[in-house]
Amino acid sequence: MNSHPVDDPQSVGLVKTKYYTFGSPPDYPLVMKSGRTLAPVTLAYETYGSLNESKTNAILVLHALSGTAHAAGYHSLDDPHPGWWDIYIGPGKVFDTSKYFVICSNVIGGCNGSTGPSSINPETGIEYGLEFPIVTIQDMVNAQWHLIQHLEIPKLLAVTGGSMGGMQALQWAISYPEMVKSSIVIAAASSISAQGIAFNEVGRQAIYRDPNWNNGDYYRTSVPGNGLALARMIAHITYLSEKLMHEKFGRRLQDTELYSFDFQSEFMVESYLYHQGIKFVTRFDANSYLYMTKAIDYYDIKSDYDDNLLLAFESTSSDFLVISFTSDWLYPSIQSREIVNALRANGKNVVYTEIETDRGHDAFLLPDDRLERNISNFLKSQFRKMIS
Amino acid sequence: MNSHPVDDPQSVGLVKTKYYTFGSPPDYPLVMKSGRTLAPVTLAYETYGSLNESKTNAILVLHALSGTAHAAGYHSLDDPHPGWWDIYIGPGKVFDTSKYFVICSNVIGGCNGSTGPSSINPETGIEYGLEFPIVTIQDMVNAQWHLIQHLEIPKLLAVTGGSMGGMQALQWAISYPEMVKSSIVIAAASSISAQGIAFNEVGRQAIYRDPNWNNGDYYRTSVPGNGLALARMIAHITYLSEKLMHEKFGRRLQDTELYSFDFQSEFMVESYLYHQGIKFVTRFDANSYLYMTKAIDYYDIKSDYDDNLLLAFESTSSDFLVISFTSDWLYPSIQSREIVNALRANGKNVVYTEIETDRGHDAFLLPDDRLERNISNFLKSQFRKMIS
Repeated sequence: MNSHPVDDPQSVGLVKTKYYTFGSPPDYPLVMKSGRTLAPVTLAYETYGSLNESKTNAILVLHALSGTAHAAGYHSLDDPHPGWWDIYIGPGKVFDTSKYFVICSNVIGGCNGSTGPSSINPETGIEYGLEFPIVTIQDMVNAQWHLIQHLEIPKLLAVTGGSMGGMQALQWAISYPEMVKSSIVIAAASSISAQGIAFNEVGRQAIYRDPNWNNGDYYRTSVPGNGLALARMIAHITYLSEKLMHEKFGRRLQDTELYSFDFQSEFMVESYLYHQGIKFVTRFDANSYLYMTKAIDYYDIKSDYDDNLLLAFESTSSDFLVISFTSDWLYPSIQSREIVNALRANGKNVVYTEIETDRGHDAFLLPDDRLERNISNFLKSQFRKMIS
Repeated sequence: MNSHPVDDPQSVGLVKTKYYTFGSPPDYPLVMKSGRTLAPVTLAYETYGSLNESKTNAILVLHALSGTAHAAGYHSLDDPHPGWWDIYIGPGKVFDTSKYFVICSNVIGGCNGSTGPSSINPETGIEYGLEFPIVTIQDMVNAQWHLIQHLEIPKLLAVTGGSMGGMQALQWAISYPEMVKSSIVIAAASSISAQGIAFNEVGRQAIYRDPNWNNGDYYRTSVPGNGLALARMIAHITYLSEKLMHEKFGRRLQDTELYSFDFQSEFMVESYLYHQGIKFVTRFDANSYLYMTKAIDYYDIKSDYDDNLLLAFESTSSDFLVISFTSDWLYPSIQSREIVNALRANGKNVVYTEIETDRGHDAFLLPDDRLERNISNFLKSQFRKMIS
């Protein structure tokens, strides 16, 4: 009998999502960047490994647009897939849970256990829908701060994430400098490009134009699956590089040798995107997709600092590891270098690595020796500094 | 009183679209690459300038995905816009109508006067819709051949176009080598990339998912404007470069200084794309959009030649001018160089120019001195050779 992957000595094994709720009276509600308030706020989260006595080994992992609190391990023995960053989280892995205490929480506005548009609005007794306040990266981080307080961790060894997770890692260093020893920012930017906004907007338009969407009010009818799947298909193009698509699919046909001369999806790349779309609908909420993309579009670190990125990083006190991928055209290396330059101009301690790869933006989710080595070494040196 | 632009000495002035129909008995129908037949076939076309006595000055201009037969001049004194390539066609312009006889026809499958899915199917008495046969670049060119026969032009001085028009220019040189003196191929490829197919497919999916589309049967109900507009928005992103989008829009907001913290389209780039989408619906047919994108995806010169691009160009006898733009990521320069290398390996006469620009794929539709100079010089030398 084959052993289950939960038994792999490098797996965190079976894990359970936990929930922390704050903002119910007598607590304060979460005041959002828009000025609106949110209460109560529930954060779904998971932890792997153990917090050491000195509380110096905690790492907060921050997920991307479609991520969840479930970053590692399995939810059950029937679970076909491990958490989204399982390749990097576990005993002996990059985020070594035999040494570190790893935390990951679902962002607010999400749809995997944390309060979001699909949650019940206590004021109305029905799902928020578009009544949910617009969420910003800053709001996500502020909500996570409550969780870290709850876990009684005074200072995080590292905050880390890729893409929207990288934005949160940057924002942690800015919002709570005294609580962040180091920030590992992967495939991210201090603001998304005009082209990136354009792609997010056409994804949102795909959802708006699905009649089931019904202005966000569909939780008791039918979900706007057509629109959400199309949004995912569009976005997925931006997650891969042209070269990877060429290598992976080229002009090859699916299940056929000859053109069918009709409008079937016959190219492999069409079929691949189609199935990515379908799969996504089973696990993600269309309104959350709107909120997540809007949070990304709205994020612009310098906008709170007189449009001056240097000023934005002035008060940070963490060390930084910034990583970009050569073929990432959604968050191109030039945007990582902007961050690095602004940090260095402030005299901050920054390691920057550009990883040569054809895998595009999604490279941060894939196994990569160089990514592994860079993060491992950086973490080890940060841990030494933290406990010394 | 201001003079009307039709009076500009460099304008071809007022022009009228003409129509040529073939394939009605006793003519033969057009046999398509799929094996299906189309009859009758009407081609909408316009001509500018005069055919000289020796019939050596005819240039066939080939349009891109959304183009029409109306390449230059004005249809009326109230016409707000001239033809789509008016900047390059007219007396004293690149395609100098005081010297050359310029022809442009709407492709079959289109929706601007030539037979396409919105035409009446003589067998049913109603619009073809998806009953229209799949159109390939080869079919477009074969239909144009009938027009050129009708105009009694034994040999074209040049065939030219950008994007899908460039594909047709290549195909003319391959399908009818004896009829083409030169081929000017701009921002094109011998086949579109996997990423290009992906973008075309998500555009098609936007149309399929519009309930009004109704499997292509909507000519007597409501057009799938939401889907078509979204398809155009998506495609438009690929026509511009990231850098151009950054310069043109950046993260600037439309009609507001502050975020509205809702789902309005507030970034300028969002509003720009939105209006591009709306505008397109007023002038283009959704089914034609499906047929045009499919023609592009299906085009693969080498597929008829044992997957050997060298073999494909072996029998061509025209000279070639190949032009690409550095920031065109839809038809990147590398694809133009593939064509150039294959032609050169065959000992063909090729001039290749890569134009440095931030304007992306749409650069071929915009004024550019270098584009102008390259085409002008090439044409002059071809004309000298043609008449000598």
